[in-house]
Amino acid sequence: MSAPIRLGIAGLGTVGIGVVKIIQKHAELLSARCGCEIVISAVSARDRRKNRDADVSGYAWVDDPLELAARDDVDVFVELIGGDHGVAREAVELALKTGKDVVTANKALLAMHGQELAELAEEQGRVIRFEAAVAGGIPVIKTMTESLAGNRISRIMGVMNGTCNYILTRMESAGLPYETVFDEARRLGYLEADPQLDVGGIDAAHKLAILSSIAFGTRVAFDGVEIEGIERISIDDIHRAADMGYRIKLLGVAQMTARGLEQRMSPCLVPADSPLGQLQGGTNMVVIEADSVGQLVLRGAGAGEGPTASAVMSDIVELARKVRVPVFGQPAGSLTRAQPARTAVPAAYYLRLALLDKPGALAKVAAVLGDAGISIHRMRQYDHQGGTAPVLIVTHKTTPEAIDHAIAELPRTGVIAAEPVELRIEEVQS
Amino acid sequence: MSAPIRLGIAGLGTVGIGVVKIIQKHAELLSARCGCEIVISAVSARDRRKNRDADVSGYAWVDDPLELAARDDVDVFVELIGGDHGVAREAVELALKTGKDVVTANKALLAMHGQELAELAEEQGRVIRFEAAVAGGIPVIKTMTESLAGNRISRIMGVMNGTCNYILTRMESAGLPYETVFDEARRLGYLEADPQLDVGGIDAAHKLAILSSIAFGTRVAFDGVEIEGIERISIDDIHRAADMGYRIKLLGVAQMTARGLEQRMSPCLVPADSPLGQLQGGTNMVVIEADSVGQLVLRGAGAGEGPTASAVMSDIVELARKVRVPVFGQPAGSLTRAQPARTAVPAAYYLRLALLDKPGALAKVAAVLGDAGISIHRMRQYDHQGGTAPVLIVTHKTTPEAIDHAIAELPRTGVIAAEPVELRIEEVQS
Repeated sequence: MSAPIRLGIAGLGTVGIGVVKIIQKHAELLSARCGCEIVISAVSARDRRKNRDADVSGYAWVDDPLELAARDDVDVFVELIGGDHGVAREAVELALKTGKDVVTANKALLAMHGQELAELAEEQGRVIRFEAAVAGGIPVIKTMTESLAGNRISRIMGVMNGTCNYILTRMESAGLPYETVFDEARRLGYLEADPQLDVGGIDAAHKLAILSSIAFGTRVAFDGVEIEGIERISIDDIHRAADMGYRIKLLGVAQMTARGLEQRMSPCLVPADSPLGQLQGGTNMVVIEADSVGQLVLRGAGAGEGPTASAVMSDIVELARKVRVPVFGQPAGSLTRAQPARTAVPAAYYLRLALLDKPGALAKVAAVLGDAGISIHRMRQYDHQGGTAPVLIVTHKTTPEAIDHAIAELPRTGVIAAEPVELRIEEVQS
Repeated sequence: MSAPIRLGIAGLGTVGIGVVKIIQKHAELLSARCGCEIVISAVSARDRRKNRDADVSGYAWVDDPLELAARDDVDVFVELIGGDHGVAREAVELALKTGKDVVTANKALLAMHGQELAELAEEQGRVIRFEAAVAGGIPVIKTMTESLAGNRISRIMGVMNGTCNYILTRMESAGLPYETVFDEARRLGYLEADPQLDVGGIDAAHKLAILSSIAFGTRVAFDGVEIEGIERISIDDIHRAADMGYRIKLLGVAQMTARGLEQRMSPCLVPADSPLGQLQGGTNMVVIEADSVGQLVLRGAGAGEGPTASAVMSDIVELARKVRVPVFGQPAGSLTRAQPARTAVPAAYYLRLALLDKPGALAKVAAVLGDAGISIHRMRQYDHQGGTAPVLIVTHKTTPEAIDHAIAELPRTGVIAAEPVELRIEEVQS
């Protein structure tokens, strides 16, 4: 047995306590697997007297996370505070500067400051591990940085915000409108304090930016992600999409094209019978396409105490085993600056229009699409509802530009009763 | 950059050549990711003059794999010869004894001699990596030994023989009998030289035994796997199971119970809408259930040049990065001897009977089941075909013993026209 590895855990919320519980419960198992004991030297959290689900009285208590980060009896600083600036960032930097490795679940921090932190870690000869930052218990960081190291990755796709997937699948299964399910999710404690992080797609976009960096050897570029949340998805769209054999998911897609790096997090249609289409509730899924391995699909719990703590433990075990992998899979200095590119890869699109009850209305719409070079794959007109007729169109593959152009032109027909809804249909191998 | 890592590759079949191609094609990418160059010092194969899909003229050629294993200019011996004894085993042992780490795709070798080899490796201070030995391109070894190191694994399930899954899904989609699809698979080169390895379930059982060892911290115990192949699966069963909402898969299941370690590889019914049920063709899937992470599902190509070479490269990169994980995830000496247990975990069962056209036939069958303590969940009797009536029964959860007992009693009713077919319905979260 080697010398014990000594942790300082900053943040004793759900995940922090989950980590403490695993270390207490599986001490023997962990020692056998790591070849050394994992010990907690000290912990820190906002409120010392809070009633917690694990006994932390055996560890030194430090009020200030910065003090914890600088302690001599800590080898690995475990940052579970959260937030992309303030004390989380300062503590991580201080830990690296005082010779600690860092394990974090902080996707915002890595998405906003990953490059600087990776450079700092390398200067100090330390590493930062962050398996828990993306897709909870799914080992996607290890898979991409290690298991697929012999591959050139061509595309990554993921459903990586469990709350959004819960809302969308619950809307479908219960036939409830967005607002009702949103309120329900809030009551159940599924939403972040700022719900925009979830339903606005920001949290998921943070995760996508991190995966892109590893996949394409580029500097994390969160500002290159086109982001659209799920707020405009109506129960109507969910039902209509289902009629056509699709499900709506908040889907992240990143791919390197000749024009640059496309990164988008937006509601998309996927075939209902594809692995992504079948994903229910809070489950997450990441689909990786690479030159040698082909398609790899990873599915598991994207949040919650156990799964997230499992991912944090994976990083701790890695460090206990003296495994040291570069932060984003290769030296920070070798990561290139990707040219951000707006989505240009063609796809089929779903359009929902509300047509006024006028003769020739459909013909006028068809003409606009035709003029934009868009050909129609399937179309359904439903019964009139209060003077307007819902019309669904699934196009053949076309460019986002053509769709934008057509959408801009449609009002001129004088037959459009409401803002058209347009959603990309992402091609997924089933 | 550190000093290059030097490989000796023994075996230049599909996988060996796949590895050579990746190393040649992605030299720069690999150097950036590993922090050192990956070079091939020497190769060995049966026929030097064979026309190969990659240029190996730049590497030293060695006719004898043993000579290759002992070379001074080799750091990692890559064993892609195959077979659980003979030259593959001798070469691996020699490589370890002469100070090399070993990367292998040889599931039979590890299933039969994993413990001795792990002990030898540790004595020599070397490691053996074998990501490619189980489920091709799916990173299941790394996931279990590293990502889930903070978990106690409770059950693993897997569809891990692509050829069997191809045969079963092709039978269903084309409505063809087993024999026809078997011949087709043979013509397409999907079957091993000894087809029993595939359709007899042996290859998949090798893989299961390896996963069990990692999951439960036990010595590999291939002889503890209850094995049944897919030869007795008829197109009738496939159709009848589909009628009831199930698909038939050659499914491996390993779980630790109070009675000991249950390991079985056998055709089972799984819900058609579960991830396992939806698996088509040669794709593999591994489902891992563990205390913290919950359920984790990994899906990908289980065989083929690219996926298998991708897994071999993952091991090579690991060694190039100086990552050293114990062979089965913990020291070989700490692996316990598991008590092998026959399957006792209760499950629902599918029974297909051919009843003679006699009054009260069904009542007699129902009585036998009732006497064995088996209650019926669903039953369907189909039209008589040539004097016998096919009857399908899905039972409520019962024990394998009760089913065996009932099957043994059934002939005494005098109404059974043919050998009953009984298949376990494995419970899978969907």
